[in-house]
Amino acid sequence: MVFHIEYPRIIPARKPEGHEPRAPRYTLRWEKPVAGMVSDYFAIQGNDLTWDDERAFFDRVTAAFAAPDGPGAHEIMRFRDEAGETNAVVVGYWTDPTANGRWFASSELSSWLAGDERLSDPAIGYWRETISVPYDRHETIYSAPWYRIGLARLPDSAIVSMTTNGYFGAARDRLPISAIDPLESPLRNQPPVAKDVSSRGRRLRVMTPQNLCALRSGQYWEGAGKEQADDYYESLQPKLMRGMDFLTEHKAETGTLSLRVMTNVGPGGQGRSETSVLAYFLSLEQLEAWAKSHETHLAIYGHAIAANRKFKEKREVVTWHEVFILPAASSFEYINCHARTGFLPFFTLFEEAGR
Amino acid sequence: MVFHIEYPRIIPARKPEGHEPRAPRYTLRWEKPVAGMVSDYFAIQGNDLTWDDERAFFDRVTAAFAAPDGPGAHEIMRFRDEAGETNAVVVGYWTDPTANGRWFASSELSSWLAGDERLSDPAIGYWRETISVPYDRHETIYSAPWYRIGLARLPDSAIVSMTTNGYFGAARDRLPISAIDPLESPLRNQPPVAKDVSSRGRRLRVMTPQNLCALRSGQYWEGAGKEQADDYYESLQPKLMRGMDFLTEHKAETGTLSLRVMTNVGPGGQGRSETSVLAYFLSLEQLEAWAKSHETHLAIYGHAIAANRKFKEKREVVTWHEVFILPAASSFEYINCHARTGFLPFFTLFEEAGR
Repeated sequence: MVFHIEYPRIIPARKPEGHEPRAPRYTLRWEKPVAGMVSDYFAIQGNDLTWDDERAFFDRVTAAFAAPDGPGAHEIMRFRDEAGETNAVVVGYWTDPTANGRWFASSELSSWLAGDERLSDPAIGYWRETISVPYDRHETIYSAPWYRIGLARLPDSAIVSMTTNGYFGAARDRLPISAIDPLESPLRNQPPVAKDVSSRGRRLRVMTPQNLCALRSGQYWEGAGKEQADDYYESLQPKLMRGMDFLTEHKAETGTLSLRVMTNVGPGGQGRSETSVLAYFLSLEQLEAWAKSHETHLAIYGHAIAANRKFKEKREVVTWHEVFILPAASSFEYINCHARTGFLPFFTLFEEAGR
Repeated sequence: MVFHIEYPRIIPARKPEGHEPRAPRYTLRWEKPVAGMVSDYFAIQGNDLTWDDERAFFDRVTAAFAAPDGPGAHEIMRFRDEAGETNAVVVGYWTDPTANGRWFASSELSSWLAGDERLSDPAIGYWRETISVPYDRHETIYSAPWYRIGLARLPDSAIVSMTTNGYFGAARDRLPISAIDPLESPLRNQPPVAKDVSSRGRRLRVMTPQNLCALRSGQYWEGAGKEQADDYYESLQPKLMRGMDFLTEHKAETGTLSLRVMTNVGPGGQGRSETSVLAYFLSLEQLEAWAKSHETHLAIYGHAIAANRKFKEKREVVTWHEVFILPAASSFEYINCHARTGFLPFFTLFEEAGR
C-alpha cells in the first residue's frame, strides 16, 4: 500500500493550470498508515566543546535511543550558533507520537537531563526541541530518490516521484491540511519581538503558538565528483549562506525565529559533506514570501534549475527538505542555555514550579 | 457535501461481525471540511459565588466571545466540585484552532485573566482548559437528532444517523484515528499519583501527556412529560450519579483525573433540565474498561436500552457525548484555584517565568 492523506479542497491549490515541472522531484510516502511525525532534537551547547564532550553526549543520547520505543532513525550533527557557541545535536525520528512519549517517560536521558548537574557548569547548556505533528501537517521534497535523509531514513517509507513541485506554493500544496486550512499564524498581526532573558542556570520552557513552520532543508554532496563538488562549494553553498545570513539578519521582517546551519558528523567527529538548515518561521506564509520574492532565494532556486539542466540525472548533489506546521503548544526546553538560543527571545517562558 | 475522515484500517474495528444496533443513534458530520475541534472552557471558582459574581463572569466571557474569531457556539454551566466549591463555566466551541488562537491573543479576556487582580481575592479562582484536537481525534453520539448541544451547536454541522453504536468499543471505532493508532497513554505503566499543591495566589500551567481522553457526556430532559421526567429523576439520574461517584472515588484504579457534573444555566441563573459530565481519563482504554465491565456503567447502559424499548421514538430525554483524544501538551491553566482543581494534583506544574 501507499499511505497518504488528501482532503476535499476548499482552498484552491497554488499549482498553475497545466503545470509540468521542469525537473523531476520526489517526496516521501508510507507503506503503512502513519498517525504522526516526530523529530525530537537534543543538543549540548558550549563555547569550548571538545570532541570528547560531544561524543559523550552523542553516545548518551544514541544509547537512550536504543531502548524500547526509541526512534526509527537518528542523525548526529553540529553547528555554530549566532552567539558563536558550538551545539552538538542528535535528532531522532518517530512515526508514532505515543512511542516518543513512552520512550522519553522511561528514558534515562529524561532523568539525566533533569539532574541538577545540568545546571552546574556555567558554560554548558542543553536543549530539547520536539517537533510533533499529525501526518497532514508535514511535507517533503528530494531532488533524487537514491539518498535517504531525515524522515526518509525511517523504515516503511518510500521515496516516490511527484509533480507537485517547480512552482511557488508547491510546498503548501504538498501539505495535506493546506487544502482545508490556510495555516495562518494567530500572531500574524502581533509578531513577537526579540527580548533579552537571563537564561543561565535555569530550565526554561516555551509554548509555541499555532502554525509555527519548522523547516529542515539539506544538501548532500558526499561522494560527488570534482566538477559537481566544485559547483557546490563555489556556487550553491555561497548562495545558500547568503540566503541564510539574510534571514538571520532580518528576523523580524521575515518571520524567522531561529535558524541553524547544521553539519552532519561522522563517527570520528569530522564534518561530513552533508548540511541542513533547521529553521523556524512564525508562519508558512512568511517562508513563502521570502522564497517567492527575495533575491537571495531566487539565486538558490535559479541554481537548482541550472544544475538540473546541466547535470540532469547525473547530478551528484542531493537537495531536500522536510516541513512541519506545528499545532499549538509544542514543547521546547532550554536548560542553562545562552539567551539567544532557540525560541528564548520570542515567547513567554515557563519554569517548572514547586508544589 | 458531508465531510468526514476515514483511514485504511491497520487496527481491527471492535464492531462485531454483522452487528445491527438495537437502538438508533446519531453522530455529527460537517457540511464543509473541518481541520480541528476546540472546546475552550473558562471558569470562575469560589466557595460563596453569588449569582451576581457568576453573571458578571458569564457576561465578560460571552462579550469577549462576540469579538472577531470568537466561537461559533457557547454554553454556560455551573457545578459544585469535589472540594465543595462552586464553579461557573463558559465553554466556547470552534472548528478552527487558528481562529481560537487569534481570538484569545487579541481578546480583552486574555489581559483580564492576566491581571494581578485575579490573584487578589483568596477565595476566588479562575481556570481555563483548552481542548484542541485535529478532526480525526474526536467522536460524538446523540440518542436523538432533534436537540443540538456541545459541538452540535456549531454552524455547518449535521446530525446524521449511524450504525457504529450499541457495542463496547463503538466510541473507539468512531474515532477516525483509532483505525491506525491504538491511542495508548505513554504513562500507561507509570500513572500519575495525586499530590498536594500550594496553588492559591499562583498561576499554574499543566502540560498533559499524549492521548488524554476528554469526555463531555450529557443528558437533556427540558420539556419532557411527567412520565419520562420521573423516569429520569428516579432511575437514570441516580444511576448516573452512582457511576460518577464511583469514578471520582476510584480515580487511581479507573484512570480518572478530573470529573465535574455540570448543569446548564438559564438566563436568570437557574439550572436548566440539562446536565453534562466533563471528565478526563488518562486513556480511552481506561474509560472503556469501566464502561465495559463496571456494574455502575452497566446499570446506566441497561437503562438506556430499557428506555429505548419503552419509549422508542417518543423518548423525550436526550443523552449524548463528545470525546476528544488530546495530543501532547494541551494547555491547562489554573489561577488562584484550590489544590484539587482539574489537573493540579496530577501533572508537573509550570509557572510563567520572568525574563
